[in-house]
Amino acid sequence: MVDGAKVCKFGNNLLFFHYICAAFNHYYIITGGFYRTNKNMKPSIPKGTRDFGPAEMARRNYILDTIRSVYALYGFQQIETPAMENLSTLMGKYGEEGDKLLFKILNSGDFMKGINAEDINESSTGHLAAQLCEKGLRYDLTVPFARYVVQHREELQLPFRRYQVQPVWRADRPQKGRYREFFQFDGDVIGSDSLLNEVELMQIIDEVFSRFGVRVCIKINNRKILSGISEVIGAADKIVDITVAIDKLDKIGLENVNAELSADGLTAEQIAALQPIISLEGSNDEKLATISKVLSSSESGCKGVEEIRFIMDQLKQLNMHNAVELDLTLARGLNYYTGAIFEVKALDVQIGSITGGGRYDNLTGIFGMPGISGVGISFGIDRIFDVLNQLEAYPQAITTATQLLFVNFGASEAAYAMKALAEVRKAGIRAEIYPDAVKMKKQMQYANARQIPFVALAGESEMAAGSFTLKDMKTGEQKSVTTSELTNICK
Amino acid sequence: MVDGAKVCKFGNNLLFFHYICAAFNHYYIITGGFYRTNKNMKPSIPKGTRDFGPAEMARRNYILDTIRSVYALYGFQQIETPAMENLSTLMGKYGEEGDKLLFKILNSGDFMKGINAEDINESSTGHLAAQLCEKGLRYDLTVPFARYVVQHREELQLPFRRYQVQPVWRADRPQKGRYREFFQFDGDVIGSDSLLNEVELMQIIDEVFSRFGVRVCIKINNRKILSGISEVIGAADKIVDITVAIDKLDKIGLENVNAELSADGLTAEQIAALQPIISLEGSNDEKLATISKVLSSSESGCKGVEEIRFIMDQLKQLNMHNAVELDLTLARGLNYYTGAIFEVKALDVQIGSITGGGRYDNLTGIFGMPGISGVGISFGIDRIFDVLNQLEAYPQAITTATQLLFVNFGASEAAYAMKALAEVRKAGIRAEIYPDAVKMKKQMQYANARQIPFVALAGESEMAAGSFTLKDMKTGEQKSVTTSELTNICK
Repeated sequence: MVDGAKVCKFGNNLLFFHYICAAFNHYYIITGGFYRTNKNMKPSIPKGTRDFGPAEMARRNYILDTIRSVYALYGFQQIETPAMENLSTLMGKYGEEGDKLLFKILNSGDFMKGINAEDINESSTGHLAAQLCEKGLRYDLTVPFARYVVQHREELQLPFRRYQVQPVWRADRPQKGRYREFFQFDGDVIGSDSLLNEVELMQIIDEVFSRFGVRVCIKINNRKILSGISEVIGAADKIVDITVAIDKLDKIGLENVNAELSADGLTAEQIAALQPIISLEGSNDEKLATISKVLSSSESGCKGVEEIRFIMDQLKQLNMHNAVELDLTLARGLNYYTGAIFEVKALDVQIGSITGGGRYDNLTGIFGMPGISGVGISFGIDRIFDVLNQLEAYPQAITTATQLLFVNFGASEAAYAMKALAEVRKAGIRAEIYPDAVKMKKQMQYANARQIPFVALAGESEMAAGSFTLKDMKTGEQKSVTTSELTNICK
Repeated sequence: MVDGAKVCKFGNNLLFFHYICAAFNHYYIITGGFYRTNKNMKPSIPKGTRDFGPAEMARRNYILDTIRSVYALYGFQQIETPAMENLSTLMGKYGEEGDKLLFKILNSGDFMKGINAEDINESSTGHLAAQLCEKGLRYDLTVPFARYVVQHREELQLPFRRYQVQPVWRADRPQKGRYREFFQFDGDVIGSDSLLNEVELMQIIDEVFSRFGVRVCIKINNRKILSGISEVIGAADKIVDITVAIDKLDKIGLENVNAELSADGLTAEQIAALQPIISLEGSNDEKLATISKVLSSSESGCKGVEEIRFIMDQLKQLNMHNAVELDLTLARGLNYYTGAIFEVKALDVQIGSITGGGRYDNLTGIFGMPGISGVGISFGIDRIFDVLNQLEAYPQAITTATQLLFVNFGASEAAYAMKALAEVRKAGIRAEIYPDAVKMKKQMQYANARQIPFVALAGESEMAAGSFTLKDMKTGEQKSVTTSELTNICK
């Protein structure tokens, strides 16, 4: 047997190898067996990652294709960025905690070169990781997008509407519904301050969920209103504490929110001033009227009210399928968002937000390109998948599974079937032949297990007549048909 | 400003953050700056990786969607596996060289825990890497597929036809046309020995390239014929040398091939016996007749001839668009393939194989599940992309770019346009409004740069008349239209 290096070094052509594994026991020994595969142990995948089988893929593709086609209607263009980014691009962008959650890639070749005892004994593993690793896996789509914009600034036409759907990786503790590899689906408009962008993003959200047949509530807030609130009660430095507390209203109730505000150092007077805001109720217009009064002395607050009003007024003209609701308890991403904040809740399923987003300033500042602001949303693909599963909201037609199986009775029958197969496929029918001439029972079991709705049979008599016997697997009904009748029935 | 950990620890909700980077200068300092971003330096991506912009994405999506839809017609089902696999799954499967080319992921948390001076001083970096890393990036789609089959054996219905299109990563030296992150597009049928699978894979290849409008030659060989050849000349142990030498015929010529065979230890008699094989010419049937005679004493050889003949005979009945050619110099992947070997060459572009594959035994043996054989092909997406680019073979209709731009003259004009926008989008027109009411000239420049074919304008007079002025950007022609006329013209 030839040695490993020789077989594997076909250079460019590696692309085309279909490895068979038996041959590799050999190298396995050479390699020294640092990573032993126990032949009796079922192989597994890293925790927090997933395989997607055919049924899941059909559903996920339906979700992604739906969102994609809505984005396209709104003039958004797709980009993709590499899974690996330089760590200099990623580090320091997600907070200290985020840096720890980045998956780092060991430098290839002699990764220990130039590392000395001092580096190893250094108490911070961060320092050593920086010596061992230059690259890391994408943690989200926003930082790579910012990097993309700066790197390709000469080719880009602003305003730039991009969407991007790719996996991201985080070394988070895996738990139900939280994965270490998961998909994000982001859409952003950068290089424009116009609120029409906010309006269009809400239309996109509305259209996507309407196509999914999922009833949602689109919640909107504005960072400037939150700033205005803390300003008018004289606690501008407490904006984060206030919004974090307000955000908990649903979970802990008014009394506890007030207790928390007090613990945060707000005076009884300030907390009292906050009450109309915390307990805000009524229609969007009523809420805006109340807020507008409370915030009349704050420039920022008034601007926020005006922005929300503009968006609401526009949307009123545009026949939205779902309700849009002003929600001051929406404070998520507060340190990132500078204007609008969005969040989408499913009405008929108990689950966290399924989409979110907002307006931000200075996307690309950290890469030396100031003045690029934008607004964006992120569809939570995994949760949307869960929602559609729970509601069984997938259309019948999304499957790309086989519609017709030809039974294989032997060489000449198979050759006869192969010609018909070519014809029905030309007509767009997804069809296959059972490749081996095994017992009829086994072939029918296969058709059942694969849920193939029609089975075509041809033995000597059918071949003589130029026909097929077509069996409807649901009803059990059989009839004699020509190839073109076969096509029409399967359609 | 709140501290990093607090802001970033919204748990599940991280999903919805649109980070703005300015806020992070703060953490950047906390983190200690091991990875400095120089604000004046243009950020870049790791060598051997690529960004795909909107135009490339449209072309790549066209390629992938075309192949996907052909696979679906043949009853193939899509799966996806995680980018990260356990290194115990990957190591030892690609030869010693391959092990070195695997991208390994540094364990998260305290990756130095349990590592002592001995480990560090060990001469082999492989040993230390095994301590530092438990996971690696997918190197191809075949080993993850084998792992998938074993892990999900209970759910799988054999024969199983799967296709998979995902990126793979290799720490190869990057060069023109060779990347460290690239896409593979594999299709395999496992759990069936029937040659109908080979026939269908060749039909799939034929159909895919016919849809692309690319003329190709599909080359086929059979491992059993190659075994038979070395057997009948009495050099069964030299099969690899012989096929490697034959493979070079095109590049180095007959004389040098013979010299190499001699250097490999073949006698003059053996080399003489090989001549009819090396210099084989004529139609497929003529070639098969010659080989059949030479190999009549070899059981394996006769089986190989019979297999090729079966495949060729079937294909003759099936109206292929492209020629299929028996090519004995095709020896690629010899250590993996046990039966048919395929390779596809473009006829009108100078480039290596653009698709390849073959039949293999024992896909899953290394994971403790013997007896699963199969046959598969891999489309070389990057090369196919290059071929279509060179031939300018992309259909006009593949773009998902904007068809219609509404000019923005101000608040009330924009509101008027937004209503029409909703209508044309409902009719499937990809349309946008310039979000800011900037100078007309700038908006028209944007339309030009984006190559948007139609621009709609509405000022006071159009609004009064309920119409738009539609400009054809190619001809410069303008006319007054209603919203529904707008839709029809853009369609």
